[in-house]
Amino acid sequence: MATALIILAAGQGTRMNSDLPKVLHKVAGAPVLAHAMRAGATLEPERMIVVTGHEGEAVSKAALEVDENVVTVTQAEQLGTGHAVAQALPALEGFTGKVLILFGDTPLIRTETLEALAGSATDITVLGFEPANPRRYGRLILSGDMLERIVEAKDATDAERAVTLCNGGLMAVEAELLSDLVTGLSNDNVAGEYYLTEIVALARAKGRSASVVTCDEAETLGVDTRAQLAQAEASFQARARAEAQENGVTMTAPETVFFAYDTVIGRDTVIAPNVVFGPGVTVESEAEIRAFCHLEGCHISRGATVGPFARLRPGAELAEDVHVGNFVEIKNAILDEGVKVGHLTYLGDAHIGEHTNIGAGTITCNYDGVMKHRTEIGKRAFIGSDTMLVAPVKVGDGALTASGSVITQDVPAEALAISRARQETKPGLAAKLFEKLKQIKAKRQKEAQ
Amino acid sequence: MATALIILAAGQGTRMNSDLPKVLHKVAGAPVLAHAMRAGATLEPERMIVVTGHEGEAVSKAALEVDENVVTVTQAEQLGTGHAVAQALPALEGFTGKVLILFGDTPLIRTETLEALAGSATDITVLGFEPANPRRYGRLILSGDMLERIVEAKDATDAERAVTLCNGGLMAVEAELLSDLVTGLSNDNVAGEYYLTEIVALARAKGRSASVVTCDEAETLGVDTRAQLAQAEASFQARARAEAQENGVTMTAPETVFFAYDTVIGRDTVIAPNVVFGPGVTVESEAEIRAFCHLEGCHISRGATVGPFARLRPGAELAEDVHVGNFVEIKNAILDEGVKVGHLTYLGDAHIGEHTNIGAGTITCNYDGVMKHRTEIGKRAFIGSDTMLVAPVKVGDGALTASGSVITQDVPAEALAISRARQETKPGLAAKLFEKLKQIKAKRQKEAQ
Amino acid sequence: MATALIILAAGQGTRMNSDLPKVLHKVAGAPVLAHAMRAGATLEPERMIVVTGHEGEAVSKAALEVDENVVTVTQAEQLGTGHAVAQALPALEGFTGKVLILFGDTPLIRTETLEALAGSATDITVLGFEPANPRRYGRLILSGDMLERIVEAKDATDAERAVTLCNGGLMAVEAELLSDLVTGLSNDNVAGEYYLTEIVALARAKGRSASVVTCDEAETLGVDTRAQLAQAEASFQARARAEAQENGVTMTAPETVFFAYDTVIGRDTVIAPNVVFGPGVTVESEAEIRAFCHLEGCHISRGATVGPFARLRPGAELAEDVHVGNFVEIKNAILDEGVKVGHLTYLGDAHIGEHTNIGAGTITCNYDGVMKHRTEIGKRAFIGSDTMLVAPVKVGDGALTASGSVITQDVPAEALAISRARQETKPGLAAKLFEKLKQIKAKRQKEAQ
Repeated sequence: MATALIILAAGQGTRMNSDLPKVLHKVAGAPVLAHAMRAGATLEPERMIVVTGHEGEAVSKAALEVDENVVTVTQAEQLGTGHAVAQALPALEGFTGKVLILFGDTPLIRTETLEALAGSATDITVLGFEPANPRRYGRLILSGDMLERIVEAKDATDAERAVTLCNGGLMAVEAELLSDLVTGLSNDNVAGEYYLTEIVALARAKGRSASVVTCDEAETLGVDTRAQLAQAEASFQARARAEAQENGVTMTAPETVFFAYDTVIGRDTVIAPNVVFGPGVTVESEAEIRAFCHLEGCHISRGATVGPFARLRPGAELAEDVHVGNFVEIKNAILDEGVKVGHLTYLGDAHIGEHTNIGAGTITCNYDGVMKHRTEIGKRAFIGSDTMLVAPVKVGDGALTASGSVITQDVPAEALAISRARQETKPGLAAKLFEKLKQIKAKRQKEAQ
Repeated sequence: MATALIILAAGQGTRMNSDLPKVLHKVAGAPVLAHAMRAGATLEPERMIVVTGHEGEAVSKAALEVDENVVTVTQAEQLGTGHAVAQALPALEGFTGKVLILFGDTPLIRTETLEALAGSATDITVLGFEPANPRRYGRLILSGDMLERIVEAKDATDAERAVTLCNGGLMAVEAELLSDLVTGLSNDNVAGEYYLTEIVALARAKGRSASVVTCDEAETLGVDTRAQLAQAEASFQARARAEAQENGVTMTAPETVFFAYDTVIGRDTVIAPNVVFGPGVTVESEAEIRAFCHLEGCHISRGATVGPFARLRPGAELAEDVHVGNFVEIKNAILDEGVKVGHLTYLGDAHIGEHTNIGAGTITCNYDGVMKHRTEIGKRAFIGSDTMLVAPVKVGDGALTASGSVITQDVPAEALAISRARQETKPGLAAKLFEKLKQIKAKRQKEAQ
Repeated sequence: MATALIILAAGQGTRMNSDLPKVLHKVAGAPVLAHAMRAGATLEPERMIVVTGHEGEAVSKAALEVDENVVTVTQAEQLGTGHAVAQALPALEGFTGKVLILFGDTPLIRTETLEALAGSATDITVLGFEPANPRRYGRLILSGDMLERIVEAKDATDAERAVTLCNGGLMAVEAELLSDLVTGLSNDNVAGEYYLTEIVALARAKGRSASVVTCDEAETLGVDTRAQLAQAEASFQARARAEAQENGVTMTAPETVFFAYDTVIGRDTVIAPNVVFGPGVTVESEAEIRAFCHLEGCHISRGATVGPFARLRPGAELAEDVHVGNFVEIKNAILDEGVKVGHLTYLGDAHIGEHTNIGAGTITCNYDGVMKHRTEIGKRAFIGSDTMLVAPVKVGDGALTASGSVITQDVPAEALAISRARQETKPGLAAKLFEKLKQIKAKRQKEAQ
C-alpha cells in the first residue's frame, strides 16, 4: 500500500537550553530530524511532510537538505500534536494509503519498526513499548488484540496504570480516516491542546480497527535534553559499532570509535582506538586507520594506512597502498597509488602521482590571500623536506625538490629544483653570541631590580 | 553562625604506593586537598586550618597556593584523628562558632552537605551515609533523632552491625565543646591512638546534643589507592559533564571530555569527542571545540572554532570568530577577532591583529637560547606559509610575508617581506642523482656481504 | 613434573568474517595465539607444539616469532579436537610428564590457572568454570571430587543440564595416557569428528583418575567474532590497568589508556587521558605521559615528559629529564639527558647530545629517496626553528643553527651555521599585490558567469 509520512518537528525543546531547535541538534553528524527522515525514506513514501514551528525556516532548510522533495508546512502556534497533524492535511490532499506520523526528535527509530507500522492491517496502528519505568508514559489499553484507546498517565485509573504497554507516539493511519478524525478533535481540556492520541478512541467509536506494533524502548528515545542527545548518540554509536564488527571490521576499542550516519568501512579494515569519522567517509577493505585520526568527506582505498594523528578533510582521496602519517592534513587532494606522506605536512588542492614521496614539513601554499590554487605533482617524484609548493605549480614525473626549497616555477620531469642559500659556517660565533645574550639578560635583570 | 574548618591532611596513604602524599595527587587538575578546601571555602569560614604530617612542607605549600590565608599546623606523629584535631586547637583560640572537621583526602564532598552540617542545630553533627556494603564502616547509633555514639565495625555488637547508617567521618562541633572533648580523649586502646569518633559518646554523657546529616556514598569517597583516585576523578567528571549539559553545552561523547576543577563553558558551545581541559580555561557561548584538543589556561570567545588537534597553552586568548586548526600550538598569545591559524603552526609570546591569516608552518621563533621575545603582527596581514618570525619583530597592518621567509627585521604596514633564494631548476639532474644513489647503495650492499 | 604444551590453533573462525585466521587477530598488540603461548611459556614446558590448519603457514610463522623453539604440526583436515591432538602426538614422542592442551583462541587464560592444571595430581585434569549462562556449554559431571565425564549440552539429560560447572576446554593429561586415549577415540557421531572431551570417560573406564580445576568465566573467553575480540582486548586492558595502578602508576582516566602485552611503567609515573602504547615500551618512574600520545618500541627515562600529541616510534630512547612536546615524532633516535624538543619536529635516525635544544619545525632529512642517513648533534647545541638537517650531517657541541637554515655540511663545535637569503622589504607591495589579485578574481568570476 502507498505510504505518506508526516514528521512533527515544530517543538523548541526548552529543556535543551539552546537557541537551536532540538531537531537540529546533531547525532552522528546529522541533525536529529534527518535521522527520522532517513528511517522514513526507506519506506519510499509517496509524500514526506515535515511540520515545522520553532525556527521553522532553519528546520525547513535542514529538511530540504536531506530530501529536496520534502514538503514543509508551518504550525504557527503550538496547539498540540493533533493540531500539528491538522496542518499537514492539506499537503495530503489526493493521497490514498497509509499515513505514518513520526517525530522529528526520535532519531533512533528503526526502519523495521516503521515497516511493521506501515504494513499493519488495521485502520490505525500505534507504536507501543514496555519501558523500564512506565510511570510518566501514556498507556495503551487493549481489548484482546484490539487497541481501544490511549490514556495519559495522569488520567489513568489504577487498573490502567497497571498496564505496562506504553504509547511510543508513532502511528500509522489510513489517510481518509486520519483526515476525518483529526478534524473531529477537541481542545476541551486543561491545556487547551488538540491531542493526537485521542483519535484511537474516536476511531474505535466509529467501529474502525486499531492495533499495536511494539519496539524496544531505546528506539523511542526522544531528544529533549543535552543528556538525551548524548544518549541518542551513544545508542547510535553502539549500533554502528556492532554492525561494523559483523561486517568484519576490527576495532581495538570500539567505544572510542565514532561513526557518522553514513560511514562505510570495508572488511578486514583495522581501526585503532580514538578515531572520529565525520560525514562522507568510505574506507575500503584491508585498510588501517591508526589511533587519533579525524576523517571526513574522504575515501581510503584498500591497503592504505592512515595515522596516527592524521586528518583527512573533504575531497581527500587515497588510492591503494597510500600511506598518510602523523601530523598530516589532506584536503581536496588526490593521492595516487603508493604515495607516501609521512610527517608534518599539509596537502590541499593537489594531485600527487603514484609512488611519489612527500618529505616531512611539505606544504602546498594553496591560498594567496584571495584565491585558492592547485598543485600538480607527477609520478615517482621526490619532494624534499620543508618544500613550499607555491600554487599554481607543477612538478613533473621523477623530479626532485631540494629540502627547504620554495618552488614557485614548474619543475620539469626528472629535473632537480632548488632554492636555497649556501650554508655559511662561522667558527666560534655561537659561543660568542650566547655569551653576549647572557650578558644582556644579566643586565636587564639588574635593571629590573 | 561563624564557622571554622579543620582539614586533616597528615596521612601518607601507603596504599597509593607513591612518594607523593595522597592529598597531593590530583583530581581534575587540582590536588585532592584543594577540592576539600574549595568545598569548605564556599562556607566563607573565619579560619581554615590544615593539619599536615607526611611531607608536611609540600602539603602546606599546596594548601597555601589554594588559599594564602590558610593556617597550617603540624601533626608530628600520627596518633589518630583525635590527636590530629588536637594539634589544630591552638589555631582555633578565640574562635566561637561551629568547627567543621573535613578530610583532605575526600575530594567529592559537596558544598550543600557542608552547609547542612554547619547549619545543624545540635552541638555535634556527624556526616552519615548508607553504603552499598556497610561491612567495614563505623556505625552511627541513634536513639530517636539523637546520635548516641559511633561504633567501629570491629567493636560492634550484632545488633549494632545491623545498623546501615555509617560514619562518613566529617563532623561539625561547637568550638568550645570540641576543645573540651578532644582534650579529654584517651588512647587506651590496642592501636594506642586517639579517636575523634569517641567525642560523640563523651558529649552525650555530658548531656550535649548530637545528630546526623546524610549524604550519598559517592561524596564520602576517600582516596587511598590509585584506583580510588581514578574513581574520584571519574565521579568528578560525571558531575561536571552533567552540569555542563544542564547549562546548555553539547558534548557528542561526554565520557571522552575531561574537565578541570575550574573549567567554564558557555551555552550552545559544542565539544566533540576527546577533549582535555587543563586548569584555567573559559569558553564563551557558541564556540566549537573539535576532537582531540588539549586546552589549558586559555580563553576562547564566542563563535571561535578550535581543532581538531589543537593545543592551547596558558595565555592563549582567542577573540570572537578566531579559527585555530590542526597541529597548531598557541602559547601566551592574543589572537584578535577573526584571526585564522589553520595548520602546523606555533605561535608563542605574540599578538596577532584582527583578520590576519597565518599560513601553514608558521613559527614564532620566540627563544634565542637565553631569552624569550615577542612577535607583534598587525591587522589583515598575511603571513605566508613557513614564515619564521624571529622575535622581537613586528609585522605591520596589511603586510605580507612570502612563504619560506625568515623575518628578522620589522615589516612596515602594507609592505611585502621576502627572504628567499631564487629557484634554480637543473634539467635531468634528479634522474642522474637517483641513479648515482642507487649505485652507491648497491656497492655498499655488495661490500657488506 | 615435566610439562609439554599442545596449543590448538587450526580453526579459521568463520564468524570473524576475515581472511585472517582468528588466532592471528591481535589483542594488546600481539596475535591472540601469542597470548596463549606466553601464558603457557611461564610453565617452562619441555616442548611446545602448535597445531595449525587454516592458513597454517602464516600461523606457524607467527608462532615461531613468539618462540623459535616451538614445534608446529599441521592438521590438514579439521576433524575435531581429538584429531587435532592426535596430530601432535608424534612431536611428543619420548616425552614423559604432563601434557597441557590449550586453545590458541583463548588469550586471557592466566598462568596461575595453567599452573593449577599442570600441578594437579590426577591423571586427567579439566578446566571448569561457572558461566553466567551455562546453556550452550558442555557440563562436567562429577562423582564426589572425581570427574566422570564431559557431556555436550545437546546430549545432556535434564539432570545433567542442571549442573552449572561447565567445560572450559583446557586439559592436563599424563603423556602416555593421552597418547593411549586419543588413539582410541571414535568419530562415530553425527558430525563425524573426534572429540577430545570423550577421553575423560574413556580414562575413567580404565580406572584412571580425573578432576577439575576451576577459573573465572572471563579467562575462558574464546575469540570467535570481532565483538569477542574487542571483549578480549577490553578484559586484557582492565587487568593491565589495575596492575599498573597497584604498581603505583597514576592514570587520570584508566579507561582511555591502552597498553600492549609487554608495556612496563614505573612507579609515580603519571599518564593523562588518551595514551596508546604499542609493543616494546618501557617507562621509568616519575615520568609524565601527557594526553594524546602514541608510543611504541621506545624507552622513556625517569623524569622525562612526553606530549601532548607526541609520537615515539621504535628506537626512540629518551634519557632523564628529556622533554618531547606537541606534534613531535621521534624514530630511532637517542635523546640524551635534558634534551628539549618542544614543537612540530621530526627526529629520525639521530643522536642528540645532552641539554641540546631543538627548535620548532626542525626536521632530520634522513632519507634521500634511496638510503637513510644519520644526524649527530652534540651537547648544549641550539638548533634554530625550521632547521633542515640534511643527513649524514654532524653538528658539534654548543653549536648554533640559524632558523630557517638547511644544514648540509657539518657544523663544528661552538660555530654558527646559517643558510638564509637576506630579507628584502618592499614598501607598499603587499597592498598592490592584493589589489591585483582581487582584480584577477573579479575578472575570473565575471568570465565564469
